Formats: sequence, C-alpha cells, structure tokens
Amino acid sequence: MLKAIVTVMLKKGIFDPQGRAVQNGLESIGFEGIGSVRVGKQIELTLETKDRAEADSSVHEMCDKMLSNPVVESYSFEIVEA
Amino acid sequence: MLKAIVTVMLKKGIFDPQGRAVQNGLESIGFEGIGSVRVGKQIELTLETKDRAEADSSVHEMCDKMLSNPVVESYSFEIVEA
Repeated sequence: MLKAIVTVMLKKGIFDPQGRAVQNGLESIGFEGIGSVRVGKQIELTLETKDRAEADSSVHEMCDKMLSNPVVESYSFEIVEA
Repeated sequence: MLKAIVTVMLKKGIFDPQGRAVQNGLESIGFEGIGSVRVGKQIELTLETKDRAEADSSVHEMCDKMLSNPVVESYSFEIVEA
C-alpha cells in the first residue's frame, strides 16, 4: 500500500480570506510578528497499488480533475509507504 | 524570516466526512483502488523572528490555542527559512 500526501494551496497573489481571518484571530489573542498566513488543504489518500509510477500518474490526474482548482490553486504531493 | 508549515489532521479513529465525500467523488469519476481519504488543513505562517527556538515555541502555542482542536485533531509542523 502507498500513501499520497497532497497539498493544495491558493496560488501566490490570490487573496486568501481564510488566512487573513486566522492571522487576525492570532493577533487578537496576543501573537505578534506574523507576516502572513495562508490556509490550504492537505489530503491523504491510501492507494491499493504498490506501483509508484502508477500512483504518481493517478494522483496527478486526481489533482487535475477534482482535488484542486487549477485556476486559483496549485498542488504538490509526495508518495510514501503507507 | 522563518516560515512555519503546520498540518492539522483529524485524529485516527475520528470519522472524516469530508474525506469520505472526496473518496466517493473520485470513485464516481472512475478512480479505483483508493483505500481511504483523510482531509486536513495546511497552514503556512511567515514569522518575523529569526530565532528558531522562539518560533517553535510560539507555533506550538498557536496550535494549542487556535489552529487545532485538541479534542479531535492532531497537528505537526516544521520551521523552514522563508
């Protein structure tokens, strides 16, 4: 079994209201020195295949078709042993 | 400047309806061989400090106080150069 760890973040330059809200929240409870906050998703998929090349190509396709919105988001992933 | 990359996931054993929905979605468009899907958050914070020990302790506190819900979520993070 393999595990794919996919990270989906808003592209640089796209306003991130959730990140801004988290930053405001942290500042409101006393944290200082925060330059910026960006909030994205981490999606962990366990895959039944043992073939890393197959997993890699399959996860790329999942990201392109469903897990990310290529207009505003970018993704990256790594494949590890589950 | 340092960057903290925080990952917040539901603890093992806690039902993850969002992950289930993603899995169903992927299967409905033809992907096979997916064992399970878990969806969490990735939060990237740029910090003005250059002191890694200070950043480490500060991010732990942020996670405990706001970024994660310790009842159902666990977190991990790494500190890298921004």
